Formats: sequence, structure tokens, C-alpha cells
Amino acid sequence: MSRYREIAAQLRSSIERGEYARGSTLPSEDRLAEEFGVSRPVVNRAVRLLRSEGLVRVERGKGTVVHEIAPIVRRANQRYTQDARERQQSRGAFATEVREMGHEPRSQIVQLGPVTPPGDVADLLRFEVDEVAAIRKRHMFADDVPVQIATSYVPWSIAAGTAITQEDTGPGGTYSRLADLGHAVTRFSERVSVRMPEADEAVVLRLAEDQPVYVIHHVAWAENQPVEVTVHVMPVHQWRLDFEWQADPA
Amino acid sequence: MSRYREIAAQLRSSIERGEYARGSTLPSEDRLAEEFGVSRPVVNRAVRLLRSEGLVRVERGKGTVVHEIAPIVRRANQRYTQDARERQQSRGAFATEVREMGHEPRSQIVQLGPVTPPGDVADLLRFEVDEVAAIRKRHMFADDVPVQIATSYVPWSIAAGTAITQEDTGPGGTYSRLADLGHAVTRFSERVSVRMPEADEAVVLRLAEDQPVYVIHHVAWAENQPVEVTVHVMPVHQWRLDFEWQADPA
Repeated sequence: MSRYREIAAQLRSSIERGEYARGSTLPSEDRLAEEFGVSRPVVNRAVRLLRSEGLVRVERGKGTVVHEIAPIVRRANQRYTQDARERQQSRGAFATEVREMGHEPRSQIVQLGPVTPPGDVADLLRFEVDEVAAIRKRHMFADDVPVQIATSYVPWSIAAGTAITQEDTGPGGTYSRLADLGHAVTRFSERVSVRMPEADEAVVLRLAEDQPVYVIHHVAWAENQPVEVTVHVMPVHQWRLDFEWQADPA
Repeated sequence: MSRYREIAAQLRSSIERGEYARGSTLPSEDRLAEEFGVSRPVVNRAVRLLRSEGLVRVERGKGTVVHEIAPIVRRANQRYTQDARERQQSRGAFATEVREMGHEPRSQIVQLGPVTPPGDVADLLRFEVDEVAAIRKRHMFADDVPVQIATSYVPWSIAAGTAITQEDTGPGGTYSRLADLGHAVTRFSERVSVRMPEADEAVVLRLAEDQPVYVIHHVAWAENQPVEVTVHVMPVHQWRLDFEWQADPA
């Protein structure tokens, strides 16, 4: 293993053991270079590796800071159960996930209304040209650290005039309103990909351009009709994604 | 948008439209700088962005090469059906996924035998200290491009003396052998995370240290007993991960 990787591994395990607490500042690179008996560029390379993994960030005037939030587990199958829909009243699946990690969830709606959705979303909703969707874009935080941008789209032909277009979607949230409207959700599908953040995402999520994000295209189906798409953008270092399913009977 | 991002976007769409074919070499950075009317460092930054996204790689003595393999879709739920188990005879889910993209799959076993599994795998298998597993480590290729390292572990107490420890696990593969042994798989769970590649993974998968990989911990359950764990390491730029599941009846 190269020397900088060894040093990165040692710093990583010091952080995991809590010797460097979350939220604390690492010693300066000069100090670390002295401690490990290597040149400063070697330490710098180790720190850059930890940064690209999302364990630390570099803050101007402060130095290298250990991220406050350990990875949050997103349990895909559990977040959309009937139980979870009932919990929507108390802020839903995201709040549960974040509270389980001992953090305080917060969600802020930043856009609401009719829009022409982006091409990939229009395709997933099987839109004709010029169809419009009700957008609901949220910035989500754990202890005031931004951890997710979630943007939902419901065909305007379904959502218009209902609570789906409102800030408060009512008891059980969007999926309960869809059921009220005769579009009970029967199936979910998700496609996970990873890319570097767009410039505006990097600002909201406080990421460097080389810190990757998951992009999850979540589709809710009422029988064979897609009735809602949510695009989740989430820094990879802040999330683990869990899925589970039954095997076919053999 | 900053200038280098604009240039990256233009190069990206030229690649997607096929103007720069997969496997071909981009013009030199000097040439691109001239073409876009910017300095060479700006072009270099755009190329680095495309490289971190996994669209291109930089080959010594050759220049910037467009990756041969477009992203492959891994359909988690379909790859472990009874049908898929039957197809194992003709090389299984990976082969199907790669063939669907128009590429030729190849799989090479690089390790087979009893081992002490790594800590995370031992935990998932609920091992006591010093328990041993049958390892089966494979390097997987699409048209000779390495796209995955998959390492399976089955408790040695189950696998010893069976085809699970052999290069050829027989018709239907490991899951059929587990069923024969009274451990029919009833449920699967997967945890997805993303990190930078380890040094040895980077060599096998031909990645730079800043090109992230998915790590999928796949667990096969026979009722409440974990009977197999596979760790999939896959360059994020070469894969999309699909999942689907039924909603609870409301």
C-alpha cells in the first residue's frame, strides 16, 4: 500500500474510534506530517482521499473538519409501507431515518407548483410533449446538515386542485391523496445511479465538485400507470441504501 | 455555469450523440483548447470532470479515450428468480445483463476455498470468532473490460464437501445447491454504499483512485438464517441499479 493510503487508513480508523470526534478539526497538515514522519504533500494526498470519501471536509480558515453526520440508512422497502404512510403525519420516512441515527430532521419546501418536468422524469411519467406536473422540491437536513434534495412530480392532470399541490398534503401525504383519487399505489421501482453533483446541488449540499451523489429515480405505480416520480439527490458519504425482497418459491 | 463545466457538457453530449465513438480517442487538449477558444487548463479541468464521471479515461501514450461500455443495468429482483437460477446453467444473471447491452460477458474465478471472511461479511453471516466460509471470488468482464469484482461467501459448515466449493457449482448454481442441502433461499437483502476503490480493486477494474465504486453487500436468507453473502464491487460509471417491490395493500 502506498504511504498516503496507509496514513489515510490510520486517520480513518482514528475517526471511527472517536479519537477525532465528529465535528472536530484535525491537526494541521504540518503537524500531521511531523507526526507520521512524512512530507506535507503525502499528508495532503491522504486528506484529499478522506475528503473524497466524505469523511472530512476542508473549511476555509478552520482546517480539516470531521463530518458531523455518520451515514444514514435509507430502507427503501420500509419507507413506503402503510405504517410509514400513517407516520407521514409526523413528517414521514425521512424523519424516521434521521431520528434513528440520533439526529433531528428538518425539511424545507423550496418549490411548489406546475412545471414542465425534466426529460428523464417526463419519460418515466410517460408524458406527451408539453404535459405539466405538480412539483414539490425539498431540501432535507439532519441537525442542520443538508443531506438530501428530493424533488417529486405528480401529473398535473391528477394533482390539480388537490392537496398534492399544497404545502401540507394532509394525513398520510401524497400517497394517501393519490389513493383518495382512485390511484392507490401498488408497486414501486427505483433506479440508482451515481454522478458528480451539479453546481447548484453542490452549493445546497455543501459538496466539492468531486464528491459524488446518488441519484435515485423513484417511481410509484398505480397498477401499470406511473403516478409519481421523485428524484432523490444524496451525497454518497451520508447514506447507505437498503433493499430487501422475497425469493420466488422454488 | 463555469466555462469548464460548459465544455464538459458539450463533450458529454458529443459522446452521447456518438460524434466521439466509444473506444475512440478525443482530440488533444491543445486542439480542444483551440476549438473552444479557452486555455488548456480549462480543457484539462473539463476532461478531469468527465473522467471522474467515468465517461473517459486517460491512457498513457494514447490520450483521452472514451469508455467502451455504456452503463449496464443490474436488475436486482430479476437476477435471483427461479428462471434466473435455471439460466445459471448458461452463466447466470451477470451474463444476461451484459448481453442485453450488446456485450460479451466473461467471468474468471480468481479465488476458491475456505477462508476467514472479512469482519463485515462475518457479521452479516452472524459468525462466531474463527468461523470459516467457502469463498468464490470472480472478476467479471464485458467485452474484456473489467466491470465487476464479486466475492461470495457461504458458511463452510454448509458448503464443505459440496459443489459450492467447486469451480463448477452445477445446474442452477449455488442457490440450487443450497436448496438441495435444505437451505432454500426465501429472501434477499442488499445494502448499497459507494466509496473510492482500494488499491487492488483499482488495478483490477482499471480505475483511478478518485473514480468511485458501488459496494453491494448482498445477503441470501433461508428463513431467518443468512446462508450466503456476496460483496459486489462495481465502478459507478458502468452500472445502474434497479429495484422494485410491491406496495402494501392499503
